[in-house]
Parts: sequence; structure tokens; C-alpha cells
Amino acid sequence: MFEKILIANRGEIAVRIIRACREMGIKTVAVYSEADRDSLHTLLADEAICIGPAPAGQSYLNMERILSATVAMKAEAIHPGFGFLSENARFAELCEKCNIAFIGPSADIINRMGNKSEARKTMIEAGIPVVPGSKEPVYTVEEALEMAKTIGFPVMIKASSGGGGKGMRVSWGEDDFAMNFESAQLESIKGFSDNTMYLERYVEKPRHVEFQIMADKYGNVVHLGERDCSIQRRHQKVLEESPSVAISDELRRKMGETAVRAAKAVGYENAGTIEFLLDKNRNFYFMEMNTRIQVEHPVTELVTGLDLIKEQIRVASGERLSVSQKDIHVSGHAIECRINAENPERNFMPCPGTITNIHVPGGNGVRVDTHIYNDYKVPANYDSMLMKLIVHGRDRAEAIAKMRSALGELIIEGIDTNLDFQYEILNNEAYQNGEVDTDFIPTYFPQYCRE
Amino acid sequence: MFEKILIANRGEIAVRIIRACREMGIKTVAVYSEADRDSLHTLLADEAICIGPAPAGQSYLNMERILSATVAMKAEAIHPGFGFLSENARFAELCEKCNIAFIGPSADIINRMGNKSEARKTMIEAGIPVVPGSKEPVYTVEEALEMAKTIGFPVMIKASSGGGGKGMRVSWGEDDFAMNFESAQLESIKGFSDNTMYLERYVEKPRHVEFQIMADKYGNVVHLGERDCSIQRRHQKVLEESPSVAISDELRRKMGETAVRAAKAVGYENAGTIEFLLDKNRNFYFMEMNTRIQVEHPVTELVTGLDLIKEQIRVASGERLSVSQKDIHVSGHAIECRINAENPERNFMPCPGTITNIHVPGGNGVRVDTHIYNDYKVPANYDSMLMKLIVHGRDRAEAIAKMRSALGELIIEGIDTNLDFQYEILNNEAYQNGEVDTDFIPTYFPQYCRE
Repeated sequence: MFEKILIANRGEIAVRIIRACREMGIKTVAVYSEADRDSLHTLLADEAICIGPAPAGQSYLNMERILSATVAMKAEAIHPGFGFLSENARFAELCEKCNIAFIGPSADIINRMGNKSEARKTMIEAGIPVVPGSKEPVYTVEEALEMAKTIGFPVMIKASSGGGGKGMRVSWGEDDFAMNFESAQLESIKGFSDNTMYLERYVEKPRHVEFQIMADKYGNVVHLGERDCSIQRRHQKVLEESPSVAISDELRRKMGETAVRAAKAVGYENAGTIEFLLDKNRNFYFMEMNTRIQVEHPVTELVTGLDLIKEQIRVASGERLSVSQKDIHVSGHAIECRINAENPERNFMPCPGTITNIHVPGGNGVRVDTHIYNDYKVPANYDSMLMKLIVHGRDRAEAIAKMRSALGELIIEGIDTNLDFQYEILNNEAYQNGEVDTDFIPTYFPQYCRE
Repeated sequence: MFEKILIANRGEIAVRIIRACREMGIKTVAVYSEADRDSLHTLLADEAICIGPAPAGQSYLNMERILSATVAMKAEAIHPGFGFLSENARFAELCEKCNIAFIGPSADIINRMGNKSEARKTMIEAGIPVVPGSKEPVYTVEEALEMAKTIGFPVMIKASSGGGGKGMRVSWGEDDFAMNFESAQLESIKGFSDNTMYLERYVEKPRHVEFQIMADKYGNVVHLGERDCSIQRRHQKVLEESPSVAISDELRRKMGETAVRAAKAVGYENAGTIEFLLDKNRNFYFMEMNTRIQVEHPVTELVTGLDLIKEQIRVASGERLSVSQKDIHVSGHAIECRINAENPERNFMPCPGTITNIHVPGGNGVRVDTHIYNDYKVPANYDSMLMKLIVHGRDRAEAIAKMRSALGELIIEGIDTNLDFQYEILNNEAYQNGEVDTDFIPTYFPQYCRE
């Protein structure tokens, strides 16, 4: 087992990883930017090292500085968390070259799954269902339009290097195709320096249902059930839960087996997520694979009783999976609300600033993952997530009641948050009935969706 | 189901009960003393009513005021929590007369189990093993000494109405008997207006192992496994865990069945605890039955997944138990540390005052039950418990590691607490090896045990 791990991240996920290491008796090194001197992850780690100014390019995204820090602090492994360098194949490759264990899959796998059109091709070859679409990448509007006509409208135009909704557009017909293709491609060029695009049939009002995968170095792969992440705003998840009400036991078994087959097809290692679109007729299609731990992993932890971060560390150090598929049982229902420093009334504008008072809910089945504390100054440089509030109940109704109660107790003063917005979602009748799809927020909260 | 419940308590247990009610859609009424205007339970309940000045006799122990409040606020039931009126048979009886549901057993059962010598007699009749001792109550030092000689020294002298270590003395031989008997009896007369005493053989260095019982109105009784509460200071529990490392599966089955038989022998209803002494040879003896929810109930909740407060409310309203014995499985290991406003360096002197800053730990498997918050003023009038920190791990080693990590993160400023003392217990090698008995604290921490 590793003796010391460097955490190449910040915020609540860095705190989450430090806690797992402390509990495993592993020493931790935090890296921090000049804006994060007083961040909880900086204070909580055994050692901490400043790696540069606030802009991520000069600190959390700066591979050389992070690798130098790792060598200088004599850490044997790096946990990348999510975001930043977590899905950067080049970084995983450099770790390997420096003889540092990257807690995640190999550079090759990150590469293959990070390239959306290549991932899609791999999955088609492995017999995994995908949304009907282009078999080859496409670069010009003319060839793309021909392809779109073959697939049939509406089509989804996607940047091959895209993610988090960037470089994505829906085209409803020939009339609006060129405009949407060009703007998606421009976004991709700007954001990812890549003009590679592909097309898929647009699945209307789907659910986003993803399966958590865990794999060791010996070819053992298990799935840990699904998460329903249909509640999204502009392709950003807002609230996640497990299990999904849309999935029968039979469908869960089938989708889970498919997810395991997908992971095996690429020789996957460590934690990963297979994201599926589920249409109204309960057909499911591979969407993408995330080759890292995800924000919403706690809901899986609460229903399975497994600690995913510890399992990541164990398999990265060469241990076998601590569980086999037959040991994994989903028990009860878990919901996570992302609490962000943003103002829903003002188009979710981020609201950095100083937290003048915080009071967190507690009690039976309530989990709080956060890096904020009294008088903490939320920097303007990073994403706006402040906290993950996660609850576990016997069933979905209890989990919803618990989340409403917990949200009612949570106090964050000094900055704006989306707390009330989350409360409104929990109070929505369609949500309570489990009638959700990825258009849930625009459908029920149009007042918050002005462009 | 009840529509409105009055909580006849304060502090963290009142908050715990209010949360359960909120989640069940039941309205809550808090009662509060003048010293508790700003207490969290007062703020959190749907309605709150002041019932008198700070001294408990004029508020939380004042039956008439609490019953009047219940009638005035139109609550149908009272949850008494623990302490205060929770084991007061007269109060349970008055509730019944006022047609208010008392969430606990009947007045008759409270009476029979509250009287230690009667409880002992009942258990002997039911074939439950008890520590060898006096069959009848004893009032004078002369008859007591004769009895002690028959039982054999060392003997434990106990006040029949006693509890929490009050009115208890150990006599090691004829020489110190009269002195100990008289001081125990005096304490009982002062504290409980009762001179009834009884004697038991003193079990040296036992473990305190108790079984959680839950029973409905239809004669169904289950046990929810045990809690090891051997870590005590002057008969006050300090740290509790479940399961007990001293109990094999076979012994658990046997003790659990005995506990269920004991509960059935008195026709028990609602939540209760059968406390056993476990000697070095794994013989167990009935010690007493607590006819209420206990401080340490969360460790049972974490290993069984059941919500004991909700179950109490359900069975009090006439529902059947939601589980049968075969559905109950103990999973993983849970530990609770009581965080008190007291100074271990100064003989655990209570330290009321204003909390100038609080930062609570969080994350996977960490539960915090508390009524304190930033700038909360801990009143001097009540017991010193501020918080229960409870963790759940896969096994005991993980739970200990998690608790150490969580204690390390907890910050309470402005008043003294026993946080460091709890940390020292967790770091003690004998504790880590599970080698504990009720003399653990005097044995390993003599510096904190000056009289």
C-alpha cells in the first residue's frame, strides 16, 4: 500500500480524498494555488505545497509543477479527483514515466474514452448499444448535413473532444443545421482546439442513467448499480440519486452487465462510469464513459456501503477488488443535492465571497461533503460547488423527506446559493412521482432558464 | 399516525426527534425553559412554547406544565426523549389519563422496571440470569451485613431507586461495609427520597453489554443486537460501540434471545434496553432494563439501518413492528463518542459558556447529532453533553480510524470539551485491541480519576 499520496485537486473532492487516506493510515500532500491558502484541503492534509497563482493553468492544471511537487514531497501516487487533470491522458502518461502511480486508468484508456467518436466506435465493436449516428468523424458542414439526412432529424451535433455540454447543439431540421453545426464546431475549436465533430440521433426527453464501474488490475470488473442524473441544467447535473425509479431489476441486471462488458472491452482499470441515455421505451444507449471518480459517487456509496475512494486507492496499489458482483447489494435510496455559490434568479451567476455563517444539518442518514467553513472566502477562480448534501433513506419517499428536512436546516450566509432552487425541485410533484427526464428543469422551472 | 407530537425534552435528543417527525410529515411542538430560548430544538420545531424558568423542576420536569402545553397546542402524543420525565411512571400515567399517547411503555412497566429490586425479582421469575444477591430489599446496615456475608465479598450495594452511579458503593469486606452502606443509603435518601437498598455480588472488571429491544402493541418483540458500553467514567458512559468484540455469534444469539424473553416477561412495548454485565468467563447477568430510548441508540441505527425514533413513533401509534427478527442484520461497526462541555484536567468540571466557533467533521460514514451552533450559549443548568459524534465503518479497525480522523477535524471553540480525552481513548492500545472493561478509564487514565 502507498505510504504517501498527493492530491492534485482542491475543494470538497480533495477533502474527501484526504479523509479516505487518513482513515487508511496514508500520509497526504495537498497542492494549492495562491487563492487556496486557507482552503480546507490545504489545512487538512499532512503536508501542503503551493504550486502557483490562482488561474488553474498556472497551478491545478500545470502538470510539471504537480509532478515536481510529487517528487519533492516523496509521494508515491497522485489522486487526480475529478475535473482538472483527472481525464488528461498526457498527465497519466507523465506520471507513469516518473514512476508515480496515477490513481485512475492508464493513459491509453483515458485517450480512447476521452475521444468521443473513438469511444463510440469501440463500443459498437463490443456490441454495446449506441444512439444511431455517424460512424466516422466529420469536419465540414456539407458532409455533416448529408450524414444528418441519413440519420434522420432531430440530430445531436457533438464535438469529439467536448464535455459538460460544451460543443453540443441540437438541430431539428435542415433549416437550422448549418448554424448549429458551425457554432458547436467553433465552441470546440475555442475550448478544445479540435474541429472534430460527430452526429447522433437526438433522443427526446431521455433519462440520464449511469452505471458505476470498479475494476482491478487482474481483469475483475464489477458494477455498483446505477445513478439517475436526469435533473440537469445545461448538461450540468444538479441532483442525483440511486437507484433510478425508471429501472426494473431485470433492466438493472441487463444494463449493469452491459456496463461491465463495456469496461472489459477496453481493459478498464480503477473507478469509471458508463453513462447511458434511457429513452421512453426503456431502450438504453451508451453515451460516454467517464474515466474518473464522479461528483455524484456518494449516492452509490450510501446504497452499497462501499467506499469508492478507498477502493480506488486499493486497486491502484495492486490489490484485488474487495468485493465480487454477488456481494454487492443496493439497499435503500440515496439522493445528492449539489449546493453551489450561484444565484438562480440571475441566470445562476456564480457568487463568490465570504461565508459569514454556516450551519450544517446532521442526524441519521445525512452526509455532508464540503470544504467550506465559517469565514471561508469562496474564490472566484474555480467552479461554484460549495457542498454536496447527501441523504440515505429506506426508500425514495423517505430520502426525499430527509433531503427536504436537511435542506431546511442548512444555513449558508454571506453569499447566494442554489439552496432554495434545490428545495423547489424536491417539492415538485413530478419529481416526487419520479417523472423526470433531462428536460425537467426547463419544463418545470422555465423562469430560471432564460438565455 | 399522529399529526402532531410534543417533545418533552431539550438538546440533541429533542433535535433528533424533531428531525424524525419532520421526515414523517408529523408537526412538532418544542417545549423550552427560559434558558433555552435560543436552543436549536426551540428554533427547529414547527411550534414552541415556553414552560418556565431554567431549573428543570420548573420546566422540563414539571408534568402539569408539559401536559397543559400538550393540550393547548393540540398535540396527540409526547415523546419524552431520555432523562427528565422519560422514565417517570406517574407522567406516563397522567398522559394516559389526559388521552395523550406517551411514546414509550406503559406506566406499569416503567414502574416495575424502575424499581431495581422488583425488576430483579421479575427477571429471576422469568428465568433470566441475574448477579447473585439479595432476594428482598434491605433497609438497615445490620441485616445488610448478614446478607453480604451469605452472598460473599466483594459486594455491590445499590439503591433500589438509583441510577447513573448514584447510591452505589462497592464493599470489599466486613471492615468497609457499614461505611459504604450508609453513604450509599444517604445518597439514595437525598437523591431519590428512598432508603430501600439491595445487594449483589460485585462482578470484577465486567463488560457492560446491552441489547436494544423494540416491541409493538401486539406482542411482537425483536432485538437489534448489542452495544458495548464498557468505557465509562463513574458509571457514566463515555464511548459506545456496536457490535461488541467480546460477543461471538453464538453468544449474541443467546443473549439476544434472553433479552427478548426478558421484554416479553413484562409485556414490554416500544423501545427498551436490557443491560447485562458480562464477566471474564462470558457469563452474562441481567443488570437493569431502561424503558426509554438511550443516548447511544445511533450506533444501533448505523449497524442495522433502522431508524429507532421513527420505529418508536410508529409502534406508539399502533402500527406493527416494521421488521421481524430474521430481517435484522448487523452490518459493519459503529462507534459513538459523547462530546461534553467539561474539562477532564479539572475532574471533568462542566464548562458552560458561549461557543465562539464550531466546525463539524463530515464525509462518508460520519454522523453528527447535536443542538449546538455558532454563538450558541451552553446554559449551566443542564447536563454537559454537546454532541454525539458517530461513525460507521466496514469493521472495527475502520470505525476507529474514522473516529480518530473525525475527532481530529472537529473544532469547538470558546468552551472546554472532552475532545482530546476521547482522542486519547481511541489511541489507547488496549482499546484498539478491544481489551476493555468498566475499569478501563481508571486503569489507563488514572490522571483523570482523582477524587
